[in-house]
Amino acid sequence: MSLVRVHNFSVSLDGFGTGEGQSLDKPFGHADKRLHEWFFKVGAGPIGRLRGVDGAMAAGWEPGIGAEIMGRNKFGPQRGPWEDESWEGWWGPNPPFHTPVFVLTHHPRPTLEMEGGNTFHFIDATPEEALRQAREAAGGLDVRIGGGTDVLRQFLAADLVDYMHIVVVPILLGRGERLWDGAEGLDERFDIESVSTPSGVTHVIFTRK
Amino acid sequence: MSLVRVHNFSVSLDGFGTGEGQSLDKPFGHADKRLHEWFFKVGAGPIGRLRGVDGAMAAGWEPGIGAEIMGRNKFGPQRGPWEDESWEGWWGPNPPFHTPVFVLTHHPRPTLEMEGGNTFHFIDATPEEALRQAREAAGGLDVRIGGGTDVLRQFLAADLVDYMHIVVVPILLGRGERLWDGAEGLDERFDIESVSTPSGVTHVIFTRK
Repeated sequence: MSLVRVHNFSVSLDGFGTGEGQSLDKPFGHADKRLHEWFFKVGAGPIGRLRGVDGAMAAGWEPGIGAEIMGRNKFGPQRGPWEDESWEGWWGPNPPFHTPVFVLTHHPRPTLEMEGGNTFHFIDATPEEALRQAREAAGGLDVRIGGGTDVLRQFLAADLVDYMHIVVVPILLGRGERLWDGAEGLDERFDIESVSTPSGVTHVIFTRK
Repeated sequence: MSLVRVHNFSVSLDGFGTGEGQSLDKPFGHADKRLHEWFFKVGAGPIGRLRGVDGAMAAGWEPGIGAEIMGRNKFGPQRGPWEDESWEGWWGPNPPFHTPVFVLTHHPRPTLEMEGGNTFHFIDATPEEALRQAREAAGGLDVRIGGGTDVLRQFLAADLVDYMHIVVVPILLGRGERLWDGAEGLDERFDIESVSTPSGVTHVIFTRK
């Protein structure tokens, strides 16, 4: 069974998945790096992933994933029609996904093939249709919803998420995009486990009942 | 030094300190009892308070407190001018405070003396002025901000809180009163510790730097 999974999605204590004012220098706006410090402390590579509970949780991101769906704001800071198509994401020539990636956008552009098995498809689609395409591309493996906040909220509203790992970071952003808007009663559809770690974050893990 | 303290203040994962639609039957509106189940599981009395981390945290509420400040909506579900003054709170003839209690309201009424050292003063005052009066009444002991959400938010905005114990309950209320509105950057003024417990809640403890 191909699951729909969310991993390492950080929110502030007041529920913002990103700050205000995304730009090339600040992909998360005024939140800057504060939502993801816990992740960067874990370190890269297999040894880094072994650093305690934060590392173990971070490591869940990769195994068994056959495709990712992300929003256009995760792919880049541009808005509206593409002025040029030279932007290839924030991640350099070999992004970390190594699977097909479906970028939800009202402004499709040609498929972008990059190194390491990264293929970006730009589609204007509902969550259901995007998931259908991603599942087909995933060859029986799971599909990851990579964010940002708005995309994750849409998939939650459509009740398409099977597993969701949220990381609550003890900062108060005050503004940005709220993950939990419209999520009333979400807890009734999931078993929820919370684990605080010495880094100060709390991992909140939603598993579909 | 007399501290200003908050204890056992529960919020949903989406940051609501109370639900929508307070009434005589449902003091927390559509949240009903869900924000405080962790507390009622702890049990009353000294033995109950010994039940694990939830119990230890709950027990911090009483010692060293000489007065409480609460909002009128914590005192009762009425709004606007008092239609009669027979309402004496939700707690029966001997409320659990056993100190002077200052009820913030735009509609003052005569002081209410109840059993067990509970004296309710109804005052129309700023947070600063309410605190001045509560400190005077507390005889050198600490002052507890008892809530509700709006009152706590006012005291946070005025930077009057020294210690704050928030309990994040893994439910999504979707509507009600948001504790964290206007709290941007609050984390910079506090050391923050988070501890999840087997009951599923996460205690988040703010201690002034």
